[in-house]
Amino acid sequence: MSDTPIRTVFFISDGTGITAETLGHSLLAQFPGARFRQVRVPFVDDLDKALDCARQIRETAVTDGVRPIVFSTLVNPDPLSGLREIDALFVDLFEQFINPLEAELGQRSTHTVGRFHGIAESSDYKARIEAINFAMAHDDGVSTDGELADADVILVGVSRSGKTPTSLYLAVQFGVKAANYPLIPEDFERNKLPGELHRHRSKLFGLTIAPERLSQIRQERRPNSRYASIENCRFEIDAAQKLMRRENIQWLDSTSKSIEEISATILQAVRLNRPVY
Amino acid sequence: MSDTPIRTVFFISDGTGITAETLGHSLLAQFPGARFRQVRVPFVDDLDKALDCARQIRETAVTDGVRPIVFSTLVNPDPLSGLREIDALFVDLFEQFINPLEAELGQRSTHTVGRFHGIAESSDYKARIEAINFAMAHDDGVSTDGELADADVILVGVSRSGKTPTSLYLAVQFGVKAANYPLIPEDFERNKLPGELHRHRSKLFGLTIAPERLSQIRQERRPNSRYASIENCRFEIDAAQKLMRRENIQWLDSTSKSIEEISATILQAVRLNRPVY
Repeated sequence: MSDTPIRTVFFISDGTGITAETLGHSLLAQFPGARFRQVRVPFVDDLDKALDCARQIRETAVTDGVRPIVFSTLVNPDPLSGLREIDALFVDLFEQFINPLEAELGQRSTHTVGRFHGIAESSDYKARIEAINFAMAHDDGVSTDGELADADVILVGVSRSGKTPTSLYLAVQFGVKAANYPLIPEDFERNKLPGELHRHRSKLFGLTIAPERLSQIRQERRPNSRYASIENCRFEIDAAQKLMRRENIQWLDSTSKSIEEISATILQAVRLNRPVY
Repeated sequence: MSDTPIRTVFFISDGTGITAETLGHSLLAQFPGARFRQVRVPFVDDLDKALDCARQIRETAVTDGVRPIVFSTLVNPDPLSGLREIDALFVDLFEQFINPLEAELGQRSTHTVGRFHGIAESSDYKARIEAINFAMAHDDGVSTDGELADADVILVGVSRSGKTPTSLYLAVQFGVKAANYPLIPEDFERNKLPGELHRHRSKLFGLTIAPERLSQIRQERRPNSRYASIENCRFEIDAAQKLMRRENIQWLDSTSKSIEEISATILQAVRLNRPVY
């Protein structure tokens, strides 16, 4: 594998470049045998920047000895920039799809630049910022009953089962207000959910995790503690699963799942059809 | 505008559907005159689910009286599902690009499902979760000197200038460890940065914001307070900008910028070329 030459991949955009990079990564992930060096070139929104970008790509071709791959969401590449004539695999993520969409919708596209531009005043955007602040303020059980009423979803699970990163991902990517609430030994002794959660039962979603993985994660935090010991992790997870089963809470095992997979599964389960950003 | 019929748009995927939706949104944003109802159908990874999905699309066509638009990142749509034969505008985000990439790289694509699948054990993914935990733990000046040494970037600015959502976006989307540090009246009186920031000057990036917008945001938090008054907001922002100028800190105005634009600008400014996730 170390013999494989490294191919440089450019993501160029008149906006942030995030869309170009997202689809680009999905496509490149289909070639695990190849090695890529990735360069993001955002905000290519005038001729000077386009000429700069074209120069950078040409120089890379010389240095690498192999032509680069370019993923572009440029809406209007200036013909004078020469970007399209460069010797590179130019993957135009826009052009290919805009024409059929124009025909389908019977409308001309506006050819406006960057979907993340000019959105800061929109109500969708504001709701999303509010969701991020909500996730920050309602992490790890720091919620009053009244505040939980505002949550779209409440994640429950033992400490370090993945609740915090998932809550933040749900907020950032989907604008979903996620609170999270740890299940702790006191809950297991009572074998009951904390009272404030009872009233919001329909919003609950549980995360569980393999005891070995949990112990490993907790070791990094508090080495050689009872908290991190495999016996204690086994006990807590077993008790949490019994409690969730008893209370009829949907849950998933986060052990080998990414926060993207966990979040998409939760939204499907609680029937929240929120757009991704 | 209310006369425009609503067009249903499906994002279908054998994985989370996040990639399909990201590019789909970019394309749809080019048609602000159209109205869309968006439906995400993730995890279409067997024939039953594909048949279900095909049925849902067909029924929608009947209900809407107009054929839906389908954005698909299905790697291998089962021919038996009939998905490709449905009367819809079927936008295949994969097929179109995989062939030229295979030719370019001289490799067959693996046709594996979902780029977010099986990544939870990768070092990239772990670094990203660590970045999220870092952003949570180092919000609003809660950092020791030693911890700031671990930060990739340290955002500074007055309270409510956008530091917290930006820190989290940088972590979630780019795996960048961002701490943030408020500039407060004491700093302005001394006209100096807090001592611990001095040692990490090369990592500093400032956010500023229009006083009117800041006052509005603060009013929502603490109505009719001195903190939220336009006079105080004007004073703080003026003082913060003087301080940043004096200390030679790069900054941007977040007033009408989205967290995507702010983050892409910061990464470019501090020369962090991190892949987006």
